Amino acid sequence: MGLLEGIDWSYLLTNAGIIILKLVGIIIAFLIVKAVGSRIVKKMFQRIQERDNISAQSLSLNILSYVLIFMFVVMVFEVFNYDATALLAGAGVIGLAIGFGAQGLVSDVVTGFFLLLEKQIDVEDYVTIAGFDGIVEQVGLRTTQIRGFDGTLHYVPNREITNVSNHSRGNMRALVDIGISYDDDIDQAIAVLQAVCDKFAAVDASIVDGPNVLGVQALGASDVVIRVLAKTENMKQWEVERNLRKAMKEALEANGIEIPFPHQVYVEKKSQ
Amino acid sequence: MGLLEGIDWSYLLTNAGIIILKLVGIIIAFLIVKAVGSRIVKKMFQRIQERDNISAQSLSLNILSYVLIFMFVVMVFEVFNYDATALLAGAGVIGLAIGFGAQGLVSDVVTGFFLLLEKQIDVEDYVTIAGFDGIVEQVGLRTTQIRGFDGTLHYVPNREITNVSNHSRGNMRALVDIGISYDDDIDQAIAVLQAVCDKFAAVDASIVDGPNVLGVQALGASDVVIRVLAKTENMKQWEVERNLRKAMKEALEANGIEIPFPHQVYVEKKSQ
Amino acid sequence: MGLLEGIDWSYLLTNAGIIILKLVGIIIAFLIVKAVGSRIVKKMFQRIQERDNISAQSLSLNILSYVLIFMFVVMVFEVFNYDATALLAGAGVIGLAIGFGAQGLVSDVVTGFFLLLEKQIDVEDYVTIAGFDGIVEQVGLRTTQIRGFDGTLHYVPNREITNVSNHSRGNMRALVDIGISYDDDIDQAIAVLQAVCDKFAAVDASIVDGPNVLGVQALGASDVVIRVLAKTENMKQWEVERNLRKAMKEALEANGIEIPFPHQVYVEKKSQ
Amino acid sequence: MGLLEGIDWSYLLTNAGIIILKLVGIIIAFLIVKAVGSRIVKKMFQRIQERDNISAQSLSLNILSYVLIFMFVVMVFEVFNYDATALLAGAGVIGLAIGFGAQGLVSDVVTGFFLLLEKQIDVEDYVTIAGFDGIVEQVGLRTTQIRGFDGTLHYVPNREITNVSNHSRGNMRALVDIGISYDDDIDQAIAVLQAVCDKFAAVDASIVDGPNVLGVQALGASDVVIRVLAKTENMKQWEVERNLRKAMKEALEANGIEIPFPHQVYVEKKSQ
Amino acid sequence: MGLLEGIDWSYLLTNAGIIILKLVGIIIAFLIVKAVGSRIVKKMFQRIQERDNISAQSLSLNILSYVLIFMFVVMVFEVFNYDATALLAGAGVIGLAIGFGAQGLVSDVVTGFFLLLEKQIDVEDYVTIAGFDGIVEQVGLRTTQIRGFDGTLHYVPNREITNVSNHSRGNMRALVDIGISYDDDIDQAIAVLQAVCDKFAAVDASIVDGPNVLGVQALGASDVVIRVLAKTENMKQWEVERNLRKAMKEALEANGIEIPFPHQVYVEKKSQ
Amino acid sequence: MGLLEGIDWSYLLTNAGIIILKLVGIIIAFLIVKAVGSRIVKKMFQRIQERDNISAQSLSLNILSYVLIFMFVVMVFEVFNYDATALLAGAGVIGLAIGFGAQGLVSDVVTGFFLLLEKQIDVEDYVTIAGFDGIVEQVGLRTTQIRGFDGTLHYVPNREITNVSNHSRGNMRALVDIGISYDDDIDQAIAVLQAVCDKFAAVDASIVDGPNVLGVQALGASDVVIRVLAKTENMKQWEVERNLRKAMKEALEANGIEIPFPHQVYVEKKSQ
Amino acid sequence: MGLLEGIDWSYLLTNAGIIILKLVGIIIAFLIVKAVGSRIVKKMFQRIQERDNISAQSLSLNILSYVLIFMFVVMVFEVFNYDATALLAGAGVIGLAIGFGAQGLVSDVVTGFFLLLEKQIDVEDYVTIAGFDGIVEQVGLRTTQIRGFDGTLHYVPNREITNVSNHSRGNMRALVDIGISYDDDIDQAIAVLQAVCDKFAAVDASIVDGPNVLGVQALGASDVVIRVLAKTENMKQWEVERNLRKAMKEALEANGIEIPFPHQVYVEKKSQ
Repeated sequence: MGLLEGIDWSYLLTNAGIIILKLVGIIIAFLIVKAVGSRIVKKMFQRIQERDNISAQSLSLNILSYVLIFMFVVMVFEVFNYDATALLAGAGVIGLAIGFGAQGLVSDVVTGFFLLLEKQIDVEDYVTIAGFDGIVEQVGLRTTQIRGFDGTLHYVPNREITNVSNHSRGNMRALVDIGISYDDDIDQAIAVLQAVCDKFAAVDASIVDGPNVLGVQALGASDVVIRVLAKTENMKQWEVERNLRKAMKEALEANGIEIPFPHQVYVEKKSQ
Repeated sequence: MGLLEGIDWSYLLTNAGIIILKLVGIIIAFLIVKAVGSRIVKKMFQRIQERDNISAQSLSLNILSYVLIFMFVVMVFEVFNYDATALLAGAGVIGLAIGFGAQGLVSDVVTGFFLLLEKQIDVEDYVTIAGFDGIVEQVGLRTTQIRGFDGTLHYVPNREITNVSNHSRGNMRALVDIGISYDDDIDQAIAVLQAVCDKFAAVDASIVDGPNVLGVQALGASDVVIRVLAKTENMKQWEVERNLRKAMKEALEANGIEIPFPHQVYVEKKSQ
Repeated sequence: MGLLEGIDWSYLLTNAGIIILKLVGIIIAFLIVKAVGSRIVKKMFQRIQERDNISAQSLSLNILSYVLIFMFVVMVFEVFNYDATALLAGAGVIGLAIGFGAQGLVSDVVTGFFLLLEKQIDVEDYVTIAGFDGIVEQVGLRTTQIRGFDGTLHYVPNREITNVSNHSRGNMRALVDIGISYDDDIDQAIAVLQAVCDKFAAVDASIVDGPNVLGVQALGASDVVIRVLAKTENMKQWEVERNLRKAMKEALEANGIEIPFPHQVYVEKKSQ
Repeated sequence: MGLLEGIDWSYLLTNAGIIILKLVGIIIAFLIVKAVGSRIVKKMFQRIQERDNISAQSLSLNILSYVLIFMFVVMVFEVFNYDATALLAGAGVIGLAIGFGAQGLVSDVVTGFFLLLEKQIDVEDYVTIAGFDGIVEQVGLRTTQIRGFDGTLHYVPNREITNVSNHSRGNMRALVDIGISYDDDIDQAIAVLQAVCDKFAAVDASIVDGPNVLGVQALGASDVVIRVLAKTENMKQWEVERNLRKAMKEALEANGIEIPFPHQVYVEKKSQ
Repeated sequence: MGLLEGIDWSYLLTNAGIIILKLVGIIIAFLIVKAVGSRIVKKMFQRIQERDNISAQSLSLNILSYVLIFMFVVMVFEVFNYDATALLAGAGVIGLAIGFGAQGLVSDVVTGFFLLLEKQIDVEDYVTIAGFDGIVEQVGLRTTQIRGFDGTLHYVPNREITNVSNHSRGNMRALVDIGISYDDDIDQAIAVLQAVCDKFAAVDASIVDGPNVLGVQALGASDVVIRVLAKTENMKQWEVERNLRKAMKEALEANGIEIPFPHQVYVEKKSQ
Repeated sequence: MGLLEGIDWSYLLTNAGIIILKLVGIIIAFLIVKAVGSRIVKKMFQRIQERDNISAQSLSLNILSYVLIFMFVVMVFEVFNYDATALLAGAGVIGLAIGFGAQGLVSDVVTGFFLLLEKQIDVEDYVTIAGFDGIVEQVGLRTTQIRGFDGTLHYVPNREITNVSNHSRGNMRALVDIGISYDDDIDQAIAVLQAVCDKFAAVDASIVDGPNVLGVQALGASDVVIRVLAKTENMKQWEVERNLRKAMKEALEANGIEIPFPHQVYVEKKSQ
Repeated sequence: MGLLEGIDWSYLLTNAGIIILKLVGIIIAFLIVKAVGSRIVKKMFQRIQERDNISAQSLSLNILSYVLIFMFVVMVFEVFNYDATALLAGAGVIGLAIGFGAQGLVSDVVTGFFLLLEKQIDVEDYVTIAGFDGIVEQVGLRTTQIRGFDGTLHYVPNREITNVSNHSRGNMRALVDIGISYDDDIDQAIAVLQAVCDKFAAVDASIVDGPNVLGVQALGASDVVIRVLAKTENMKQWEVERNLRKAMKEALEANGIEIPFPHQVYVEKKSQ
């Protein structure tokens, strides 16, 4: 800045050749960079995902264009010996403001990129992310859409996705806790329940392993809690649990083993 | 700064030509940039949303004007060889202060832009955002207005909107859990409830799928819980649930199946 | 810095003319900027709000003055060829420290500006902001004052206000849930309650829509819950709810329909 | 840096005059700035608050002194053509470290300044700030002291104070909810309670408005809840509530209206 | 950088005098700054606290030494016309990394400084800070040690201390809530309790004010709650409360006023 | 910038030699740095983990390439005396944006590096990290995969892993709390339970130490709680606890010691 | 940058002497700094802790080496008049990225340094840090290992350690609250309990002070709570509490003082 003292009007005229050469050089560089940059952006988006909406790509291209145009203007200014500091300062403030706002967008895209690359979630998976349970409907670069079991469609910005719990990656567990009376014989109850389990294991094709009676899980306030565990095919765990509950309740009843209600001992004390 | 030693008074006079030329260049550049900038801002706002209030647009134009004027002043100063460092430093501090404050505003606009672009929420949708339930009344670039079911109008700055749960995107689920006595026959209860479901499926046009009895959802402290599930048209889920509850209660009653109150076993113990 | 080698004592004397000219230029620029700046600040505050306290405006003018004086000093220094880097560095540290502290103030003003501009809250509105319920007493550029229903005056810095829930923007909802016995006939209860509702709809001028009986909202542990809904004029919702509760309780009583106490089944078991 | 090539030993000697002149100029500037700065700091503190402890002021003056001394040293160095970059870099690191630590202090002072300026809290006020309830004992620039009702003295750094709930700014509300039996007549109960209220309104000078019976606030599990509301002089609300509770309980008793204990319906079921 | 073109080998030789002079000047400045800096650090630590461990002081001196040595090296490099940018950049990265880590340390010291200066806590005080209750054992510049009542020693970094609740700053409150039966006469109960209070006020030297019966604090589910309040000497509040509880329970018993157990009304309903 | 005044067209031609030399130097440096950099990245990844997916490595190499290419372009520009400030500014903005987004990625890798280096978790370990319980399936540089006990696969970004609780590092504790009646003799109960413990200690190979009866852990509302403690082989703790519960319940029963249900004293009071 | 105009090919040749001299100087400086730096790092690690793993030290040395090599490269470039700005900019971006990731590491080391220096925790201490209870197994510069009482090994990064609660620093408290009936005489109960305490004080060597009966701690819903307090040797508190509980329960029983079950008053009300 202020280093104009060596310049004179004749300079611009006598150096017309070099100035034009520089301008040509800048324009060529500009065109090359723009072409290459556009291609990289397009390729990047292409590689990741075809089904993604076009908006993110065109947005990236737009931003690239604006940055390149700005740089082009600055360089032309400099060739004519205008000091571009003021231009840079002004643009810096605006750029910073936009940058702050766009930070979230960049986080979304980076997280989305890895979600897709590492295939942590697929469409149709049953997942828990960002506190929402449901079936994945779409994984985009910016947002992921999850259909909750009550029908709600959740739009989750990818930056909100940190831990991913995918419930569609292998066999699931079916677990039933059932309480029997303190007066009943534990060994007999376990035998009855194991018999039910064995029958299920033989019949139900969606059961992969078990079910088995593990033993006394807790000495509750009013009942002795017996735990039964099975491994089932994915998404079959709830049905197996429902069937197990019904069968085990009926088996205990048939063998005269009580599933007790909450108990309370009443100590009487006369009046006041 | 301080590079004034090469300057002399005669310089300014003898170089009057080049100075005037530069000033003209700056003014032209200034006018072009202002015209182009205004157009970009206006176009950007136009494309997104016509119904939006004018304030955000005029604000953006205002800010653009101030930045351009400031840059214009700095460049004129430089043409006259005044060092503009002090000017820049002063403006930088003020700009930074305003920038910090405006950061939230930029976040609002960026989020609002994507809300509108991706059509995550529409006016009249029933949504849950930023902890508020309700019907969307207006989606603006800065704030979104939601009418709560109790009549309250919630103004939510867009930056507060991360996860969007839209309850108006497809069919919804109607779910009724109903408890029967441990003494009743589960198979009979399921048959009675399924009969009610089938009648509803035939009659109620707002039911898309089901209702169906899933089975024993839980062995409760005092009752065996049976779950019934249906898929309904959007916003009809509550009405279907209400009707199902009434019909199922009456059907169970008619068939002598008890919906039990909480049970407790009383063990008496004499005195103290 | 350190570029003093070209200077000599004679320079200052021989260039007295240009120095004086520069000083005059700086002073004129200083006065113009100050006048324009003050006017902008004043106008800005004027446009927004007349009732606002004067402190924020005079504070802004004060800060503006200090910044201008500092810039003036720096420029005078530079005219005399003193290097102002040290001055700038020292001022930068102090400025940064104050800037950090003032950041909250700027956030307050920016949020306050939008609160006023978009008229999200008005004096006398009943609102919920920053966790406080109450009637707005004053909306300032820096703080908003809310009078809680218990008489407490809450001072809320505007930056703490993100989501605004305004309960004075349209009709409100009156909602009464009433439980009837499992032994009573649901249809009859609904008929009785609807009759009460119809009477209210005819008489009560503050009811805009309804009240209507929606149906069985829940099968509770001891009662069947019926929901009644109405739309009322703003701030009348509580009175309507109170009147509805009284009338509905008396109507059910008159028709022999029980509002049941919590039930418990007790199963006796002898001794231990 | 490194621009020493133009210097020679003779330069320092031949330019002794200008160097001494510069030194004198710097010293004069230093003294003026110090005097003015000290005065501003003192005046600032004076204006705000006389009762404040002296420590904050002397701290500010100390910091000002250190900054000025440092700038003085840098300028002297530069006059002798030593490059002060290293000095600046070293000081910058130390300054930054202290700045980070002092950030909290600045926040304290800025918040304290506004607390005092806007008179949000006064000594002797009953307030809730930063989660503490109590009577304000002192409002300082850095900390506010609150005496909790259990005698504890809370020191709250001002930066922790965001929302201020001041319970000493106008009349307070006295609110009593009282439950009557489902078997009692609501109209009669309201009449009895209103009679109590009217007597209080006539007698108790600390009651500003009311008390009035609002109506049926809730249909509870075992009782019908009636709400009574009054407006009282500041800090009298608890006494009024206590007196109202006693009088209303006695009035209901005298009129044979029951304040019911929790109810439960017992359904007997034989054995198991 | 790169401004070496004006230098030549002869320069270094012919300017040996000025270089040696500069080196001497730098070394003298170095020694003076080190001496002064060490003294400031030592004095600062001395003024605050003698009992503090020596580690913080020697750490500060160490850091000061390293910074000075680094600046010394940079300046020597510059005298020999080596460009020190690379050195500065390298040191800057390391310095920044250490600075981030040390930020917490600086916060500790700044907070500790004010804790000691404003005497918010003293050794032997009973305080609540950072969620820990206990007796202060040591207040250091970096950490504060609190002995919990269960014997645990809590080390709290000073930066974790924001709000300080000091329970050893004046008289404390003793508060006893006691429930009487709905069937008992409130006036009589208050008279009995006040009699106990008066006896205590006369006898117990650790009671500063009261105790007094305030009145009916609440109409509980099963009892009418009466509140009694006293002001006691510091740390005597628990003993006074214990004594009051015992005396009041015995007084009520002696006067036939019941402290009721939880009540429940049971409504019998036959079978199902 | 703007320092072009000394340049002339002839310069470029006459200095063709030096320019070409510089270009060659830059290209050589570029190739060396690229080769060395690639090798470092590859070696780094190699050393840590062979099983890791290739994506992270190729990503790092990609980023390295882009940075080097950019630096190469800038240097070539400079050789031809184009000022690269604009280029740098433009790249800086883009770089910053990407940098913000990539920050999380770097955190992942750094944390992952230490997880692997310090072997805090191994595949097949049972751990609790980031709120998830389960068996480690894979530890990657970016994410760790944990298989929950219900079959869900949790993908945890390493940056989310702070505290690691590894349940597979040594013996585990089996703890059983068992309540006996207030009427039973504590000494006898302890003797009976210790006898069970001794039998287990003799028989069960998976018990490392104990089990032992510790004594009266609590005086509960309805029972005296006795605590029994053992040390078992890893992952055997649940089985041992289940077996202990069953055996201890049966032993107490056999010795006539009661495990009591919740007690309540009921005081009868006639009517109302 | 771009200041090459003064250079010519002959310069490099004619100045070969000075360039070689500079290179030698840089290499010597490089070797000295590397040697000194390595020694400082090693000494620093040595002084703190011998048992620490070598990884942190070698990591620090590695980082130091990379920084020095980079600085060496930059300086060599500059000697040959290549402008190193591009190099610096490129390295800066990479350095910043690594710096962000390493920030946590630096925090770990700084906190670890002070943990070790101030001996806040020792191996074998029973502590509560970062929410984990257990015995310290290892205190490292980066992580601290705590063995939970259930056998889990917790790895806590030092940065997560803020407040340290050390339960192995002096005597601990044994506290037993025991409830007696409202019908029993408080004085007698206190006498009985104090007798038990006195016997323990005489017999149990692990009791340092007390145990003493403090008095009536609370008037509970069904019992009068008496508090007993003792001071014991470290880690003996639980055993003393267990023994006290057993002895006090037996003493109360022997003296006919009841430990009451929860009470409830039953008010009968006929039918509905």
